[in-house]
Amino acid sequence: MEVVMHQHLSGDVGFLLSRASGLVVRATNAALAEHGLRVRQYSVLALACDTEPGVSQRELATVLGLDPSQVVLLVDELAAAGLVERRPSPTDRRTKLVVATDRGRDVQERAARAAADALAGALSRLDPDQCDLLRSLLTQVVATSR
Amino acid sequence: MEVVMHQHLSGDVGFLLSRASGLVVRATNAALAEHGLRVRQYSVLALACDTEPGVSQRELATVLGLDPSQVVLLVDELAAAGLVERRPSPTDRRTKLVVATDRGRDVQERAARAAADALAGALSRLDPDQCDLLRSLLTQVVATSR
Repeated sequence: MEVVMHQHLSGDVGFLLSRASGLVVRATNAALAEHGLRVRQYSVLALACDTEPGVSQRELATVLGLDPSQVVLLVDELAAAGLVERRPSPTDRRTKLVVATDRGRDVQERAARAAADALAGALSRLDPDQCDLLRSLLTQVVATSR
Repeated sequence: MEVVMHQHLSGDVGFLLSRASGLVVRATNAALAEHGLRVRQYSVLALACDTEPGVSQRELATVLGLDPSQVVLLVDELAAAGLVERRPSPTDRRTKLVVATDRGRDVQERAARAAADALAGALSRLDPDQCDLLRSLLTQVVATSR
């Protein structure tokens, strides 16, 4: 059956965002599978790799737009795989920071290349200028929530 | 703690898509709650309202990017609320079509206004031209999956 035009949804930016996001998540999950990661675990690992001396679970929840309980589970999974560790913050020992292990950094580098390839595939209809434009518009949208 | 720049993720279009989509979904779910709907139910109802003589569950799965089993659950929920019915297709009686009831059409119209307001709020940092541009870029991305 042919997919017909849908008046209410086809031009709805919210619907298009969901569809585009789902498309990229599925492509990225497929690419990350051989590195033993899913998108959300990869995002936590990437943030742990990017942040010195580490990232708090509260900050992870804010940046990723997840519930704190979801973040705890993701960090548990990454810790069980030996990719991150929880260490006390050097400035506030009551706060635990999530820190990437050496093995975590290795896995993250390889996973990042796989994720970038998957993203390029999912965005193959856009030329580089259009990708930059999309990035800029989405950055503005996301800034609303801060 | 301040949210610092994150080298690997901050400019990643896939990550930005997830964040923007999550933002819009949360705002829309909040707006739809008083109409007794969540975003996915609303999308199914909108498609059932848009399509004559109705929409198949397979087509719903394709358009919404969901598993067929998820679609069955959503249609069950809407049918239990009296907003849609399953009827045999006039052209192929083995296919059941999802058809909006009169009450479903009423609810959809009111829910559509609430969803549009929520979306406008979530996209308030973009001017109308930027919204059009975002819609056009996302439409191209989504077309990749067809």
